[in-house]
Amino acid sequence: MGLRVDLDLKSLVRTVPDYPKPGIMFRDVTTLLKDASGFKSCVERLAEPFRTAGVDAVIGIEARGFILGGAVADRLGTGFVPFRKKGKLPWSTVGQDYELEYGTDTIEVHEDGIGAGERILIVDDLIATGGTAEAAIKLVERMNGVTVGAAFVIDLPDLGGAKKIQQMGVPCYSLIAFEGH
Amino acid sequence: MGLRVDLDLKSLVRTVPDYPKPGIMFRDVTTLLKDASGFKSCVERLAEPFRTAGVDAVIGIEARGFILGGAVADRLGTGFVPFRKKGKLPWSTVGQDYELEYGTDTIEVHEDGIGAGERILIVDDLIATGGTAEAAIKLVERMNGVTVGAAFVIDLPDLGGAKKIQQMGVPCYSLIAFEGH
Repeated sequence: MGLRVDLDLKSLVRTVPDYPKPGIMFRDVTTLLKDASGFKSCVERLAEPFRTAGVDAVIGIEARGFILGGAVADRLGTGFVPFRKKGKLPWSTVGQDYELEYGTDTIEVHEDGIGAGERILIVDDLIATGGTAEAAIKLVERMNGVTVGAAFVIDLPDLGGAKKIQQMGVPCYSLIAFEGH
Repeated sequence: MGLRVDLDLKSLVRTVPDYPKPGIMFRDVTTLLKDASGFKSCVERLAEPFRTAGVDAVIGIEARGFILGGAVADRLGTGFVPFRKKGKLPWSTVGQDYELEYGTDTIEVHEDGIGAGERILIVDDLIATGGTAEAAIKLVERMNGVTVGAAFVIDLPDLGGAKKIQQMGVPCYSLIAFEGH
């Protein structure tokens, strides 16, 4: 496939210090997505563990999760379902609140976005505390779907999100990890 | 490929009357994206005209443009660059204002998102008046890139956006059209 198998994805991620606030090292995936080989490698490696998992639909979490989620759905030959921030979807929705550092937020999906028994793969660019991913899994459950996995480019293991998702019984994959937060 | 070549993409789009305000027939692509054959057909047909166009990067416009833009970039073997709403990108940006019905809005890209001479394909789900697409093309120009085309799932021809883009010298493709607005 012409893919550089030794491609160092981590070196393609840009770190922006003190964004969005002092002390945070923001992991910026745009430099990785811009690199044709890096992008291709991400999509392939996110899709690979789920090739035989009988996935019915890939869910992407707004907004960066849409970029890789759409491409992974195309690779797996499934449909794509957006999980959006509150008030962005035009039809009847089901919502799930989740906690932020200060306050709460909500993700929403269309009522017909997930059917009973459908097998769902969740894709996002990064997992930190796992609050959004946890809310997404709960939302899939409430719609009687089955989350067969959650796949991320970047894990920040010190923040415990991946462990939380595994403890919910959902296999969690990531391609690279950064210490700290 | 098992693709139904006679697939009626138009019938997979949901129309939501009076959204976001009375009199508007909102064309909701989520039902099309959810359909595995429909999604695959969209990605294939958006990418097809640009297979030999020497595209260096696909641009997706936040947020729905990310879903198809990422998949089209993967099909073409290029990188992906997000054009985001104001204040969403973590690093140094270049912005372009555009007019809305009331007031103005801004799209932004990272300063290193487009290099001089790079050949860019713009992807979004829908073209209406073309204000956002026009701003995206101007932004590519300002960064000394070359927009080789703009591709949309849905065109609302009565609103004139596709014609405006063509008049800028940029080939504009869409898969389906709806009369009215």
